[in-house]
Amino acid sequence: MQIDVSKVINFCESLFSGYGFTSDESKIITDVLIRADLYGIESHGIHRLVRYNEEITSGQVDVKAKIQTVFETGISACLDANKSMGQLAAVHAMNLAIQKAKIVGCGMVTIRNSNHFGIASYYTEMAAAQDLIGVSMSNTEAICVPTFGAQAMTGTNAMALAMPAEPYTFSYDASTTVVPRGKLEVYRKNNTQLPDHWALDENGKPCVDASVVIENIIAKAGGGIAPLGGLGTLHGGHKGYGLSVIVDLFSAVMSGGLTSNYVNRKKDIAGICHYFMAIDYGIFGDKTSIKNNMSKFLQELRDSKKAEGQNRVYTHGERSSEMMAQRKNGQIPVNEKTLEEMLNIAKKLGTDTLSL
Amino acid sequence: MQIDVSKVINFCESLFSGYGFTSDESKIITDVLIRADLYGIESHGIHRLVRYNEEITSGQVDVKAKIQTVFETGISACLDANKSMGQLAAVHAMNLAIQKAKIVGCGMVTIRNSNHFGIASYYTEMAAAQDLIGVSMSNTEAICVPTFGAQAMTGTNAMALAMPAEPYTFSYDASTTVVPRGKLEVYRKNNTQLPDHWALDENGKPCVDASVVIENIIAKAGGGIAPLGGLGTLHGGHKGYGLSVIVDLFSAVMSGGLTSNYVNRKKDIAGICHYFMAIDYGIFGDKTSIKNNMSKFLQELRDSKKAEGQNRVYTHGERSSEMMAQRKNGQIPVNEKTLEEMLNIAKKLGTDTLSL
Repeated sequence: MQIDVSKVINFCESLFSGYGFTSDESKIITDVLIRADLYGIESHGIHRLVRYNEEITSGQVDVKAKIQTVFETGISACLDANKSMGQLAAVHAMNLAIQKAKIVGCGMVTIRNSNHFGIASYYTEMAAAQDLIGVSMSNTEAICVPTFGAQAMTGTNAMALAMPAEPYTFSYDASTTVVPRGKLEVYRKNNTQLPDHWALDENGKPCVDASVVIENIIAKAGGGIAPLGGLGTLHGGHKGYGLSVIVDLFSAVMSGGLTSNYVNRKKDIAGICHYFMAIDYGIFGDKTSIKNNMSKFLQELRDSKKAEGQNRVYTHGERSSEMMAQRKNGQIPVNEKTLEEMLNIAKKLGTDTLSL
Repeated sequence: MQIDVSKVINFCESLFSGYGFTSDESKIITDVLIRADLYGIESHGIHRLVRYNEEITSGQVDVKAKIQTVFETGISACLDANKSMGQLAAVHAMNLAIQKAKIVGCGMVTIRNSNHFGIASYYTEMAAAQDLIGVSMSNTEAICVPTFGAQAMTGTNAMALAMPAEPYTFSYDASTTVVPRGKLEVYRKNNTQLPDHWALDENGKPCVDASVVIENIIAKAGGGIAPLGGLGTLHGGHKGYGLSVIVDLFSAVMSGGLTSNYVNRKKDIAGICHYFMAIDYGIFGDKTSIKNNMSKFLQELRDSKKAEGQNRVYTHGERSSEMMAQRKNGQIPVNEKTLEEMLNIAKKLGTDTLSL
């Protein structure tokens, strides 16, 4: 089903206002959510409204949270989100990083006690829109099993980086696991075996049954998803494992918050932590020529020889940018189940469905 | 064959002095090289002396090179290595990043027109030894094929990060390819098939014949190694591809140097570029408690449940640290062929072999 973007935006803004967020806050949360749908990353868009509804109504997200500064220098800050909605904490923190980068060339902000923040690239692209490099990271509840381990210890732990370029901003945004949990759910729904190297059972043995892995994750019974690079070390799984530790280092260790192995979406405080960095790349030389260097390199990648049967080599951010150009003044696909969930939430909350 | 570390050090220092490097320079280059052997990363140690010999005698490395500052701010610099030995360029650049981090909390230095710098973790650990976070990256000659491509466009493109912790510094150091080229050479030597997902032929088709891949790489005839995550997107190869682009972004694009697809070890200027960052993590709060957070998290990873048949979960830097403790006051293994090469080089150069 296709629905007008403007209708979905109005619906979401009205919904978030219904929870008690201010009008500005509701606009920010909605903008982050809808961006995912515009980019074609449906798993992180309005599909998540049910989950956010649970978190807000259970009190894990505090609608009235005030973000506190714990520590600050000219180039850095450590913040406490105090259970803020993740999108609000993240926009606040990235704006602070951007402000510092504009003054001293670089800003780094780490923030604890937050919640799920949606797509990491939303924040890196805030920096890119101001002609800066943006970096963002977030830990999550543990889902990723270290190399040679049998127990999830790190999260999906996304890393994102955006760098201005023409005609597309370079925008990298990826989990440090081989796949995110949502992918396993698709395999379970279709009742198909997982590819090798994606997941492990509670004894740390390779497991191709998505149901077993998902049930174990929910019950925290052991096992989980392999790091990028897969199981063991043959294909470099120890590299993905290390990258996931780096995300916890910058987001949780630096902020004095909870590392992924303590993050818990069932508790009063989920404890998710994020990290943001903005760099004014003019600290390395003339910005115009640096940006041109980047655009040229990306074009060379796109122009490079294709594998047999392929007709494009993409650069990161290209697909989502094309998808957004198609959708932004038109419609986005909404799954029937998602629409039903959205209408139910609005009904319970007593907010207007705005003829959705 | 096992040889005393002190003898190997004396030999190398004498060799580099023989090329015309000063005594201090020879000590630095030797220290970087020997560190790789002490860590058990033989591929990056004295095994490379033949290659360095070629580069120095062909003039690709300029023994008398002066490193120039192209652009500088309080938190950053862009340098030109002017064909300097990679180890000297890298130590110079990381020292500058460290100096800036100590004053303003963070230092970022990008450097162009350098040469192969050995192990990336040597430089990140220079920062860690001063109680700072260290980051280093380097591009190389193109060897990695972008997702859906058939032509190597990015290099081995290592990323390294070190963060102080007890009892082991966290020290991540990995290529952004599924494996480095050296691994293919081992398979060729043993005449065994490559695992799936490691490499591609000149048409971008999966290829398990190491000889074909290596010969194509040498002839720049197409094909190469897959990015971390393997071929296509099923196991996340597009993530490794993106990480390799990020290494070229910070090292080459930011320095105005050559991206991996232009780096050429057969030309007068190889054009390898590096990036270094040092962060005083005290910019986020109390250093003692942050370092304790890190040590605790790493210990939890090591203590986590093991997969059946495994008895350890490692953290990054643990193995090399243990290996170095064993070797540093004793001996290192030297391959017979490597020893023969070393003695030949010394003979031609007329330097003392110091009873090696």
